[in-house]
Amino acid sequence: MRILIVNPNTTASMTEKAAAAARAVAAAGTEIIAATSRMGPVSIEGHYDGALAIPGLLTELKERQEAGYDAAIVACFDDTGLDAARTFADVPVLGLCESAVATAGFLAQRFTVVTTLERSRVLIDNLVRRYGMGSRAKVRASDIPVLELEDAASGAIDKLKAEIERALSEDGAEAIVLGCAGMTDLARELQDVYRVPVIDGVAAAVKQAEALVSLGLSTSKRGSYASPLPKHFMGAMSGFAPIRAAG
Amino acid sequence: MRILIVNPNTTASMTEKAAAAARAVAAAGTEIIAATSRMGPVSIEGHYDGALAIPGLLTELKERQEAGYDAAIVACFDDTGLDAARTFADVPVLGLCESAVATAGFLAQRFTVVTTLERSRVLIDNLVRRYGMGSRAKVRASDIPVLELEDAASGAIDKLKAEIERALSEDGAEAIVLGCAGMTDLARELQDVYRVPVIDGVAAAVKQAEALVSLGLSTSKRGSYASPLPKHFMGAMSGFAPIRAAG
Amino acid sequence: MRILIVNPNTTASMTEKAAAAARAVAAAGTEIIAATSRMGPVSIEGHYDGALAIPGLLTELKERQEAGYDAAIVACFDDTGLDAARTFADVPVLGLCESAVATAGFLAQRFTVVTTLERSRVLIDNLVRRYGMGSRAKVRASDIPVLELEDAASGAIDKLKAEIERALSEDGAEAIVLGCAGMTDLARELQDVYRVPVIDGVAAAVKQAEALVSLGLSTSKRGSYASPLPKHFMGAMSGFAPIRAAG
Amino acid sequence: MRILIVNPNTTASMTEKAAAAARAVAAAGTEIIAATSRMGPVSIEGHYDGALAIPGLLTELKERQEAGYDAAIVACFDDTGLDAARTFADVPVLGLCESAVATAGFLAQRFTVVTTLERSRVLIDNLVRRYGMGSRAKVRASDIPVLELEDAASGAIDKLKAEIERALSEDGAEAIVLGCAGMTDLARELQDVYRVPVIDGVAAAVKQAEALVSLGLSTSKRGSYASPLPKHFMGAMSGFAPIRAAG
Amino acid sequence: MRILIVNPNTTASMTEKAAAAARAVAAAGTEIIAATSRMGPVSIEGHYDGALAIPGLLTELKERQEAGYDAAIVACFDDTGLDAARTFADVPVLGLCESAVATAGFLAQRFTVVTTLERSRVLIDNLVRRYGMGSRAKVRASDIPVLELEDAASGAIDKLKAEIERALSEDGAEAIVLGCAGMTDLARELQDVYRVPVIDGVAAAVKQAEALVSLGLSTSKRGSYASPLPKHFMGAMSGFAPIRAAG
Amino acid sequence: MRILIVNPNTTASMTEKAAAAARAVAAAGTEIIAATSRMGPVSIEGHYDGALAIPGLLTELKERQEAGYDAAIVACFDDTGLDAARTFADVPVLGLCESAVATAGFLAQRFTVVTTLERSRVLIDNLVRRYGMGSRAKVRASDIPVLELEDAASGAIDKLKAEIERALSEDGAEAIVLGCAGMTDLARELQDVYRVPVIDGVAAAVKQAEALVSLGLSTSKRGSYASPLPKHFMGAMSGFAPIRAAG
Repeated sequence: MRILIVNPNTTASMTEKAAAAARAVAAAGTEIIAATSRMGPVSIEGHYDGALAIPGLLTELKERQEAGYDAAIVACFDDTGLDAARTFADVPVLGLCESAVATAGFLAQRFTVVTTLERSRVLIDNLVRRYGMGSRAKVRASDIPVLELEDAASGAIDKLKAEIERALSEDGAEAIVLGCAGMTDLARELQDVYRVPVIDGVAAAVKQAEALVSLGLSTSKRGSYASPLPKHFMGAMSGFAPIRAAG
Repeated sequence: MRILIVNPNTTASMTEKAAAAARAVAAAGTEIIAATSRMGPVSIEGHYDGALAIPGLLTELKERQEAGYDAAIVACFDDTGLDAARTFADVPVLGLCESAVATAGFLAQRFTVVTTLERSRVLIDNLVRRYGMGSRAKVRASDIPVLELEDAASGAIDKLKAEIERALSEDGAEAIVLGCAGMTDLARELQDVYRVPVIDGVAAAVKQAEALVSLGLSTSKRGSYASPLPKHFMGAMSGFAPIRAAG
Repeated sequence: MRILIVNPNTTASMTEKAAAAARAVAAAGTEIIAATSRMGPVSIEGHYDGALAIPGLLTELKERQEAGYDAAIVACFDDTGLDAARTFADVPVLGLCESAVATAGFLAQRFTVVTTLERSRVLIDNLVRRYGMGSRAKVRASDIPVLELEDAASGAIDKLKAEIERALSEDGAEAIVLGCAGMTDLARELQDVYRVPVIDGVAAAVKQAEALVSLGLSTSKRGSYASPLPKHFMGAMSGFAPIRAAG
Repeated sequence: MRILIVNPNTTASMTEKAAAAARAVAAAGTEIIAATSRMGPVSIEGHYDGALAIPGLLTELKERQEAGYDAAIVACFDDTGLDAARTFADVPVLGLCESAVATAGFLAQRFTVVTTLERSRVLIDNLVRRYGMGSRAKVRASDIPVLELEDAASGAIDKLKAEIERALSEDGAEAIVLGCAGMTDLARELQDVYRVPVIDGVAAAVKQAEALVSLGLSTSKRGSYASPLPKHFMGAMSGFAPIRAAG
Repeated sequence: MRILIVNPNTTASMTEKAAAAARAVAAAGTEIIAATSRMGPVSIEGHYDGALAIPGLLTELKERQEAGYDAAIVACFDDTGLDAARTFADVPVLGLCESAVATAGFLAQRFTVVTTLERSRVLIDNLVRRYGMGSRAKVRASDIPVLELEDAASGAIDKLKAEIERALSEDGAEAIVLGCAGMTDLARELQDVYRVPVIDGVAAAVKQAEALVSLGLSTSKRGSYASPLPKHFMGAMSGFAPIRAAG
Repeated sequence: MRILIVNPNTTASMTEKAAAAARAVAAAGTEIIAATSRMGPVSIEGHYDGALAIPGLLTELKERQEAGYDAAIVACFDDTGLDAARTFADVPVLGLCESAVATAGFLAQRFTVVTTLERSRVLIDNLVRRYGMGSRAKVRASDIPVLELEDAASGAIDKLKAEIERALSEDGAEAIVLGCAGMTDLARELQDVYRVPVIDGVAAAVKQAEALVSLGLSTSKRGSYASPLPKHFMGAMSGFAPIRAAG
């Protein structure tokens, strides 16, 4: 089984961190293929960055089709472009937020997502509500720019810990979801410190991808995720025109 | 007052239709500037088309900043890229779906949105729920490809009328919202036939744009719509890198 | 275009303040006609005051029909009698709360309404939920009796500012809605201080009224807002008996 | 224990029917005092009628205070003026809709309310949602004008039965709530026919009133139902000015 | 009328307290029959205890059928086994939480439930949401083990009072619901202290049981509470096999 | 990895079918241990059967602890006793309904659960709402007694197919969830027929169990699933008394 993990931002060190986290939990027969977007923002912080990361994401999904993959993961906690990717692909596509909150739901009745900047908090809260967890999950921002997570000296981990402690004492959180792909290497350590489940989206998404593939399930092509209709795409986007018939 | 209407698909005839609808309702001092995206799909049907229309939309918003506009409208009922556009712009940005359902809410307690294809129905239903109208509005698809609305001989209007009649008899609809920018020229005629309010998103958005500008209100730059943070954008997207400081 | 603003309480100074706010934002061709209820409470604080303000409101709507108006506004943030007014009138009727929260929804994903007394807080929270903004808006009371807003020496503005500051720091509010018609003159000043959108219901309702009239839209007379059925009204209310056939 | 039942419309035959239904279920020591509003519409069909029934309702509540009552019931399924009555009174006040749907909730997980006209359907659906039963209860209209229920030859009962049958077959209703005070005499007969619980609001409200009184519970005077603040009421409403200090 | 109150835990002193509270509010003709489960946990704190209390509850309901009862109450605030009991019995069955929150809903628009341990808080919050009160009621834990309520020297009442005070000051609670059967003797005293309605589930359930019986209403046997289908039960549970035909 | 699947009804043929389905999808290193409850109903149809199946379920979980298992699955689509099992166990516990609807959520935006009898429909609908899928999923009953699924000549499959066809044409379902453990062998065949994802709860739960174990995640012992407090259990339930200290 080959799982393609696409980092929709262009920072290769974050891809490597996510790939390492993925490989650490992948099953014996699973090959993790990591791709970094080659066009778009160096980090995804808010709606503008996210929207402009989608062409790069879709490009990776498309160009790697020939080599083949059995499932894909969008390695950003905002689930950037997830709906578009599911519409495009014939294989299952997983997002970090959706995978992580579904996983948390099996472990705890109430939990808190701790993300980076305030500008991402409402965006993720909207996702959590759309995924049906609005009455079970709270979202908190810890005031950490995404790229500070790549810098051990930034103090980012202390801010993150402080916010987790507030979630436990003020929210009655029974579990913690780490709300940024850049936090993926911290889950195990934080779980040991706080002795509650700490869920990382990269790891959660890998296991969901493996699950869907081994169950022979893929995105429904009936209704809202039906394959793109064949049509012209103009100008700089012309390369994205679908070439096959709609499902 | 100058209002920029961007058609995020690349079909100029739809832009013209929307511009005409906008000018028909614009106040005396309002100038409507119509722009057609120069990159992306010729029509927006589903998540894939929508995501790939956003760079073209943002390009128009950016390139026309120098000439200046006081508000912008995204002329697609899927509210394609609306969050990104609000994050980008310093002026108010309106979407057709959000404007139309807010307008319908002042006129009716229960209403139905009639859109084109099934693949757009769930997408719009998600928007309607996010905008808080989930318990008041139903969304129906009338099985019309978007570009058939440009062809008088396509039978599209008969399909649309049949679906409106079902909405009135089965949903208890008190008003109808036309769920595609390509239907903008039909609102007045359908209102005369069915004698219930028929709301067109283009017209609704023009009035909301005028309202916000004349009230001196613009998108909040605190929280989820804060201006893009300055950062590098790579590759084909490098032109989108924000150059000003964050709000 | 003639817009009738009815203050459903009997305090003329509040009517004047609302009329001034309305005229300040009205379009060139819009005439604002201000009316003060001649029967009922001097201010509306809670359910009892509100219910007993409705006959006075409907009287103004009725008696001014002959002179004519194209839309009406109920100038109380509780949206007092709004449903009854919409059922009665053949022209669009707007409420302050509904207009303000719809307007806020175009500017911010999360916002806070700051009202006067605790007894109005839950009433407005119920409105906000009915209008579909329950997951996006919080309602706060600032412990100000309505008529203190008419008295510059009362300290009311300081209490209001303190509550706005709590909304910004504790709620993550991206915009503020002023939850009382008596605050209408403060919006611009507060927006300058706090640098987030501050929405006043009177101004918002004027623009929505103008929008509906210029779009040729009025309240649906199918379903819940169908015109009153012709029937006898007894005793002191006999003057309210509808005289036309139902819609 | 003395329970005051106020019919907020002015049709005495409906009052008598409600009083008979109340007396049929009242406990041994309960005295039912029936009052018919002396001002307002002869039947309540929609928002306009309802709003103008409130002064008559409050007048009965007030004028009968000297004689005394331990609880009051608003005998209209729209719960007309219920919030105002609770704010006014020092004793518990019950509405038919709220009492009936709470009672149905103890008997069935899913149920249907069958009311009269379409114009009342949405109004009652809004109440049902406010009372928290939106995901458990459906509301249907049976196209019966209220006063036809007073006329045995009108065919109203056949229409009502047809709608109940649709509720059972199409909604999966486990119980039926009769959505009009004028249907109060039909509950037992319909329950015998359809062998599911059939709940009448008058009877339900009497038992809730007895319950609250015997438990020593009354409306909270903290927050949204705090007693009216002392203030002037002008003109034809001056008699409604509160004379006591606020709670 | 005979009302059976079953304490689903095995602590007889709690049964006696509940029976005394029930008798204190029962109508003249109501006989309260108190039963203590003879199998299961000595107190119910969380899901495990609750699930294992159900066979004992159902045993009491079954064995006392021959002597006869007109309604039954499950005397635990977790509404332990309520759905199963309603499916089993031919008479109405009431739970404390459902009865108490419905009663609170007649008295206050916003209220707080104060329960014992954190492990019960989410469980009760889930019930409150299922009963439709999620947007009106908050649930708080006061960190009191259930059996400490039986011990006057435990300091439990002080903890309970402190939590009520937080509910009043922080939640804007207009009424308080006591969230444990073991608090039943404290309601009147706390109501006197805090001067807001304080609702005890035992008392509320007794009045609801009396109401349903006197209205001739019982659990619907159509749909989700249909009588158990006749079938074999194996092993230690064989005595629970239904012997009658399904409803 | 050892996964214990407990069939909470006592019909061994259903256990075998579930075990076969589990083994068909289990990863290479996963051992499936199947257990049939030795006490309780032969099938679970409704609340009564479900409640009385829990002691048998917990007995299997307890007695097999010594031999050891890394995760457990409750093999009934009603998620019978799932909360109690999670409270009891130190390893992850999965339910079929929760696993299946989470899985469906990765594949489709709207889907339908098709279950057996009407009495199970509302019960499952309540679960679906609790799991946050209420606005995305519809639940349908196909009028099949559970044990008819064990009898190839019963016509059960035809009824099931007819209901799936209604789901596709009337609900706009993009995927189908099979709402009974007894349907587990039909998923692949039905997916081939209808060409939409068909999700079986047993298979979904196995993959979720494997996922949680390999991620080192288990049920949170903070809050609502905290380990049972040590206490006496009386009578026939005395064997269930927890012997370890609470978490």
